Amino acid sequence: MEVPVSSAEVTIAINTIWVLVTAFLVFFMQPGFALLEAGLTRAKNVGNILMKNLMDFCMSSLGYWAVGFALMYGVGNFFWGRSYFFLQNIPGETSGVSTLAFWFFQLVFAGVAATIVSGAMAERTRFRTYLIYSLVISAVIYPIVGHWVWGNGWLGDLGFLDFAGSTVVHSIGGWAGLIGVIILGPRLGKYNGNGTINAIPGHSLPMAMLGMFILWFGWFGFNPGSTLSGMETGLIAKVAVNTNLAAAAGAIVAMVIAWLRIGKPDIGLTMNGALAGLVAITAPCAFVSPLSAIIIGAIGGVVVVYGVSFLDRVRVDDPVGAVPVHAFSGVWGTLAVGLFHETGGLFYGGGWGQLGVQALGVVAVFAWTVLTTGILFIILKYTIGLRVSQEEERIGLDYGEHAVNSYPDFGDLSVG
Amino acid sequence: MEVPVSSAEVTIAINTIWVLVTAFLVFFMQPGFALLEAGLTRAKNVGNILMKNLMDFCMSSLGYWAVGFALMYGVGNFFWGRSYFFLQNIPGETSGVSTLAFWFFQLVFAGVAATIVSGAMAERTRFRTYLIYSLVISAVIYPIVGHWVWGNGWLGDLGFLDFAGSTVVHSIGGWAGLIGVIILGPRLGKYNGNGTINAIPGHSLPMAMLGMFILWFGWFGFNPGSTLSGMETGLIAKVAVNTNLAAAAGAIVAMVIAWLRIGKPDIGLTMNGALAGLVAITAPCAFVSPLSAIIIGAIGGVVVVYGVSFLDRVRVDDPVGAVPVHAFSGVWGTLAVGLFHETGGLFYGGGWGQLGVQALGVVAVFAWTVLTTGILFIILKYTIGLRVSQEEERIGLDYGEHAVNSYPDFGDLSVG
Amino acid sequence: MEVPVSSAEVTIAINTIWVLVTAFLVFFMQPGFALLEAGLTRAKNVGNILMKNLMDFCMSSLGYWAVGFALMYGVGNFFWGRSYFFLQNIPGETSGVSTLAFWFFQLVFAGVAATIVSGAMAERTRFRTYLIYSLVISAVIYPIVGHWVWGNGWLGDLGFLDFAGSTVVHSIGGWAGLIGVIILGPRLGKYNGNGTINAIPGHSLPMAMLGMFILWFGWFGFNPGSTLSGMETGLIAKVAVNTNLAAAAGAIVAMVIAWLRIGKPDIGLTMNGALAGLVAITAPCAFVSPLSAIIIGAIGGVVVVYGVSFLDRVRVDDPVGAVPVHAFSGVWGTLAVGLFHETGGLFYGGGWGQLGVQALGVVAVFAWTVLTTGILFIILKYTIGLRVSQEEERIGLDYGEHAVNSYPDFGDLSVG
Repeated sequence: MEVPVSSAEVTIAINTIWVLVTAFLVFFMQPGFALLEAGLTRAKNVGNILMKNLMDFCMSSLGYWAVGFALMYGVGNFFWGRSYFFLQNIPGETSGVSTLAFWFFQLVFAGVAATIVSGAMAERTRFRTYLIYSLVISAVIYPIVGHWVWGNGWLGDLGFLDFAGSTVVHSIGGWAGLIGVIILGPRLGKYNGNGTINAIPGHSLPMAMLGMFILWFGWFGFNPGSTLSGMETGLIAKVAVNTNLAAAAGAIVAMVIAWLRIGKPDIGLTMNGALAGLVAITAPCAFVSPLSAIIIGAIGGVVVVYGVSFLDRVRVDDPVGAVPVHAFSGVWGTLAVGLFHETGGLFYGGGWGQLGVQALGVVAVFAWTVLTTGILFIILKYTIGLRVSQEEERIGLDYGEHAVNSYPDFGDLSVG
Repeated sequence: MEVPVSSAEVTIAINTIWVLVTAFLVFFMQPGFALLEAGLTRAKNVGNILMKNLMDFCMSSLGYWAVGFALMYGVGNFFWGRSYFFLQNIPGETSGVSTLAFWFFQLVFAGVAATIVSGAMAERTRFRTYLIYSLVISAVIYPIVGHWVWGNGWLGDLGFLDFAGSTVVHSIGGWAGLIGVIILGPRLGKYNGNGTINAIPGHSLPMAMLGMFILWFGWFGFNPGSTLSGMETGLIAKVAVNTNLAAAAGAIVAMVIAWLRIGKPDIGLTMNGALAGLVAITAPCAFVSPLSAIIIGAIGGVVVVYGVSFLDRVRVDDPVGAVPVHAFSGVWGTLAVGLFHETGGLFYGGGWGQLGVQALGVVAVFAWTVLTTGILFIILKYTIGLRVSQEEERIGLDYGEHAVNSYPDFGDLSVG
Repeated sequence: MEVPVSSAEVTIAINTIWVLVTAFLVFFMQPGFALLEAGLTRAKNVGNILMKNLMDFCMSSLGYWAVGFALMYGVGNFFWGRSYFFLQNIPGETSGVSTLAFWFFQLVFAGVAATIVSGAMAERTRFRTYLIYSLVISAVIYPIVGHWVWGNGWLGDLGFLDFAGSTVVHSIGGWAGLIGVIILGPRLGKYNGNGTINAIPGHSLPMAMLGMFILWFGWFGFNPGSTLSGMETGLIAKVAVNTNLAAAAGAIVAMVIAWLRIGKPDIGLTMNGALAGLVAITAPCAFVSPLSAIIIGAIGGVVVVYGVSFLDRVRVDDPVGAVPVHAFSGVWGTLAVGLFHETGGLFYGGGWGQLGVQALGVVAVFAWTVLTTGILFIILKYTIGLRVSQEEERIGLDYGEHAVNSYPDFGDLSVG
């Protein structure tokens, strides 16, 4: 204790603690997603969706250890990395923290990208198929985009800015979900031949609400932790404040718009408004003022309400609203960097340049994700099958896939 | 990495990380309150109470950004602050941390003060009215008391000690709830004409229990974080230990007293005993020994059991016990500083002085809160209305206010 | 702020923050256990099991303050400590952190050891009896083993390695549960006279899943926090990564084996596979490579699936699988240190020495726990009684012990 510690030792300790503690919070988003998705689906499918959420993180953990990290942060070219497979030959430190701490922080992000998909495709996707595509997304599709933006790839090189992943993490999950839903088709009974739509309410609003709160909590790891440094105190604090204000504004605006449109303050849309605010601020949180964060979050709340309506109009059946929240609001947040960036944004005299690069990144990631997950889902559809049988969908995936009743003391909820 | 970092840089980094991480824990108390209140109310009102809990934090976030922080910590007089509206012209640092981090820590406290009220007034308060008064409490009523005690105001100047807010945060919420309940009146069917009382049990004990545990967890942010410094390690550790011991003692004593009085170890009273211990230790946690913390928490457990009985006897219908937990036990904890303070308390030879100042603070905050929230609730009652219609109360606020069934797969729980 | 801070001050601040934040996460494992156990038992017993989980931590808090810490870390002999009762005369610092912070970290570990037992003995143990034995385990039985290994006792002196407590914490809880279950006997209706077994499914799979996720989250406090130092960044990061990989591998392998054996990916066994991986890696997490962590966790997944089957075959009725997860997998993890230790393990050329010491520790702790808890349970059985009446077991412990219906709005679930 009497030996003086060096500046470098202190700095790396502070950074590593910061990165690990925030990574733990991001890990905790896994039950957040699990509860949100379970709450917004039917009781007969709740065990299945929870199991998918658990297993996608397990598959991501091994896939990102074996392959994903190498593709994302390995030394390579502008498009992918090629070293550090199986965590071999990694340096002792990366970005001022222990590399294993850096790896863990990146893993929990990969886990978020993977888990978003399960919500959009809920209540009719085969379990074994889900295991495969969650592994491919977290081990290959996501890490390559990550390399482009955060791993010395071509998008980062062009000046594309996505601080914590509106595009890199959220929109990948959202677009993958969109393609999956289109290829899967809607749930049985969702859309009628005469053009009307049946609401299929989730089985537990409190469960969904707890999931939403856990996600908000976890986002304080997701965004502030993305400084990767505990020493940049002003930046960390600003990111935390912007994250919270955007969530609050998103929830309030989504509630108000829903109230005006349907006459009631809808709870589901309000929750998704908070999440849309969080997704929107994820890219710009480090670059904008608190007032801009409120505006960005508020517009996220608008995006999600109209996004949900739009998807229903075009008969894309996304049971939890994953596509509006993660894809549409992710696009908005990424573009918002080009508008509100305090030194380079259009509204701050920075001209159209940043906005253009942001739009390019949005389009490139959209194209990559749609192409790769589209091919993946089509291959899976025509090999092991993407969707459960109609019979299984009717009785519920809990019984069909896992031979379980998630709530046995509450009677037979499996035919809902 | 080779550039030496200064003592000041290291200190501010350690402090800011500490303040932000503990603030995240305090944020997490929001779902704690939400689940506690939802679990202790009926299934037909659960969506409504969750939505109130979500929205009061959203309203607090914007209100504390615009007005609350300025009134509480702005440069001003002994009664309120007058600068920093909309976070304009804030200094880079406050109390040794980045000011935005300080702001966020203070915001999550304002959010706690606001959210306590929803529990006391649950199951019959109009949603739109709730939005307004939660905004006023978090943006005006709470910050002014906060200024008195923590913002260079008159109570702090007199030597009033409230380390983390037994009075400043909890008793404000509790007193506001008490006045609200008195003005609202009891729930339909709670008290009979012949003097008997109908128990109206909450719909999910596990949900309430999870809420209680989350609150206990969040309290490790609330009290230890109130050091605002990560460098005062002895103090931080003492506060954490005292917080935990008081909670444990409160739960045990409440259980034992309930057991003696009603013949069974009542689960609801035991949970409220833990919370009462936590509220009681909030003011004195930094000033007392672990043994004193156990005594203070234990007496909190006594206070809550008799407080619940007392309210029922005078027909004040507080469905979750918010008034005994936050107001009565908050008063006890605040007075306990005057008794157990290790250097200035009555039991430690410090005389009656500190106790007198503590009593003055308790009375002043009681008077301020009762007056301001009383006026607020009466105005709201005679303008947009404080209470839902009898018809709506019968079918439940979920359907009446939000057109939702929170548990659709479990049958129609809306007429309970 | 201009006064330079010393290396010692900075180091102790970093260490104390690390130890406290990770201790908060370990505290949060209490609701994790509570929800896991409640979800895996029937609705008619859910309030009782939650109350047991709450009260064992409360009893542990006071018991570890009064006696436990003194026995475990007091100055004494090779078998127990004899100073620091009631936290009297403690030094200012222990292991480079404030002693009160160190105490709190140790307390939450004691709380875990105590709470494991409630799951194994669920649905038929008397509440008042539970209060007594949870106090004895956390205040006496656990601390003495803790002294042997971590408190300058004989096992640590022999070179026994258990980094975060596969044996010290988990196997004690598991063995105590096993002895308790044997003395208690199976639940009514579990085993039929004709040799068949009735599955008694838990009442809420989502509740159990949330509990499992919270435990995984809390384990990031449990294992990485056991460095007791925030300065050893490489070690901390390695421990975090190993912890996560072992959990993922345990879940995947348990799922696959269950799938092969029973034809379906069983959700309960998969959850227990994750927990078994976590328990297994708890002893070796600081000493092994990430690849070894995957192997250790995977074998934990095997252990739990066969362990559950084995117990059913010998008619030991452990409703939540606490014995296979905490005892069997704890033994495996402790032995794994002797195999995979990067400098002293058998597979790394270290010979049989470490493995022998590990086996000795496993046997010694087994013998101690079986003996002491066996005597304790038998005394309790023949004095105040260990088991509720058959009538009470049939109607449920919620009504019988606490006069409560945990889900009153969902009808009468008390006869299940």
